Amino acid sequence: MKIMSAPRLLVFLLGCMTAATASPPPTLVIHGGAGVILRADMSPGQESEYRAALQAALDAGYAVLEAGGAALDAVTTAVVLLEDCPLFNAGRGAVLNAEGACELDAAIMDGRDRAAGAVAGVRHIRNPVRLARDVMEQSPHVMLTGEGAEQFAATLGHATVPNDYFITERRRAQWERARELEARRQDTTFLEEKVRLDGPDERKFGTVGAVALDRHGNLAAATSTGGMTNKKYGRVGDSPVIGAGTYADNRTCAVSATGHGEFFIRAVVAHDIAARMAHRGETLAEAAAAVIAGVGELGGTGGVIAVDARGHIALPFNTPGMYRAWRKSTGESAVEIFGAGDR
Amino acid sequence: MKIMSAPRLLVFLLGCMTAATASPPPTLVIHGGAGVILRADMSPGQESEYRAALQAALDAGYAVLEAGGAALDAVTTAVVLLEDCPLFNAGRGAVLNAEGACELDAAIMDGRDRAAGAVAGVRHIRNPVRLARDVMEQSPHVMLTGEGAEQFAATLGHATVPNDYFITERRRAQWERARELEARRQDTTFLEEKVRLDGPDERKFGTVGAVALDRHGNLAAATSTGGMTNKKYGRVGDSPVIGAGTYADNRTCAVSATGHGEFFIRAVVAHDIAARMAHRGETLAEAAAAVIAGVGELGGTGGVIAVDARGHIALPFNTPGMYRAWRKSTGESAVEIFGAGDR
Repeated sequence: MKIMSAPRLLVFLLGCMTAATASPPPTLVIHGGAGVILRADMSPGQESEYRAALQAALDAGYAVLEAGGAALDAVTTAVVLLEDCPLFNAGRGAVLNAEGACELDAAIMDGRDRAAGAVAGVRHIRNPVRLARDVMEQSPHVMLTGEGAEQFAATLGHATVPNDYFITERRRAQWERARELEARRQDTTFLEEKVRLDGPDERKFGTVGAVALDRHGNLAAATSTGGMTNKKYGRVGDSPVIGAGTYADNRTCAVSATGHGEFFIRAVVAHDIAARMAHRGETLAEAAAAVIAGVGELGGTGGVIAVDARGHIALPFNTPGMYRAWRKSTGESAVEIFGAGDR
Repeated sequence: MKIMSAPRLLVFLLGCMTAATASPPPTLVIHGGAGVILRADMSPGQESEYRAALQAALDAGYAVLEAGGAALDAVTTAVVLLEDCPLFNAGRGAVLNAEGACELDAAIMDGRDRAAGAVAGVRHIRNPVRLARDVMEQSPHVMLTGEGAEQFAATLGHATVPNDYFITERRRAQWERARELEARRQDTTFLEEKVRLDGPDERKFGTVGAVALDRHGNLAAATSTGGMTNKKYGRVGDSPVIGAGTYADNRTCAVSATGHGEFFIRAVVAHDIAARMAHRGETLAEAAAAVIAGVGELGGTGGVIAVDARGHIALPFNTPGMYRAWRKSTGESAVEIFGAGDR
């Protein structure tokens, strides 16, 4: 074995230190939906429940990163917990469609090679984000829909659940109120406007999502949703649309959106944040703020969570509140629900 | 009535002339799919058929623009004709899915306000692009899927056709060959690779689309497809994904893509062309070429047609050929099929 000269040893040690300093800081951001979420509408007990659920998902996802795990695994872990939690509009606790069933969409994207997977309109897959990941990893496809997506799940031996598994009493009651309102207004076409008038919880466009940066410098994003209360016609929002509700690219950032999906699709929100960074040289914060402002100009409401390859985060939203939480390698961590002005 | 002074009259007349000169030059570009389309594989008779079909769609769409009509109407007109033509993989003549049925996707987007509509997995709508347009204009939604999309169509009194309407003998024969190949290879999962090996026509990723600039300076894009031969699992490609296969924004350009949809979704192709123009200040030609090069680096093949707000056009593709045609207000017009090197 060759022995290093003192100067070479010094260079070597300095190199190690720089590498250690430059190694990407693990970072996780999650959301549980944006919307008309006001402190005045929420009891302290309810607030505690939401905070605890967000904290649990954050901790579980961050533990993956802290152990040196992949961003892809961290966002999967966090979103699975949010899907399993009945509080959020994804997986168990999803809103009901016009038929009184839950119809779920999810997507995931790997910033390393922009591999992506998405499912839309599934009814019997306990964790749609896991199926989206299988679409990405076990098929040559990106987007599978409806019964076809469930047939694909069956070939992989995915456990299925009856649709009732997803339905909670709270969501059924919301759905019934939504239907009453619809009947009263004699408008049998679309309900969106009415649902927004029907109490604080129904007005939010619930979705869950996570974005992460791991120690290896890889970014990932995942999003999952039940969509709009009383939705019809196989409506698909932005969550499973790669580039709109979900996007990740190691060269720029990872983004998960929540909001009025139609506007987020038209503005190609998640990809436009990455594009502003790549093509305009904007910071993550500048790009995310500009894109949410643009959605607002188009008439849309909602927000995004985003992380870049250096661990910067951005969580802009133009709604009164957004369920959100983050943790950085510096120890900085928070769980927040309401807007800055709602103290 | 006030009489203009001579200098004011001169200024007024010059203003009129400038306005006339600056009025946007009506421009239409259409495509009928990109892929392994080689002169050697096509008889003169076949080539004439394709050329005539492209010319007819181009002429019909351009007539709308020439009469002062809207870009949205021009792209609808052109795509409806391509859907009705059995030669192309959209509407009648679409490829068959694993069940031996046609399953159609389409999207349309209006550059004025980025309004958009898309349908995926419809089986009984004669012109899916018309239904996509109704989703945009008659619903608050952007994307409707499967039976839900057809229920929406029924509320508008859309005429339906039996699925057999779409099926041609040529496509059924291709499908049967594809299935034989699949059986022989004992791979029952996905067929994509095999279909690409099975003769020239089967290898192309057929899609049809149109992009237009009208005299009012408005851009529009539309895309329609039957997807991949023998596709399974409710697979959705890039065509109905706003930002991937279809995008239009008066501030930049209108784009319709054709190619290996999974790569086009991951690269958010159509929106990235617009984003490079908006954020990087590239010309349409630079942006479109860079994005198709990027798709190639990702491993994907295909092409796009695009037009910007000044009537510049770009038609890059990285496949051997692409069915394409364009017409400009200068009288410049062409119908082409093969690549530059395939003379």
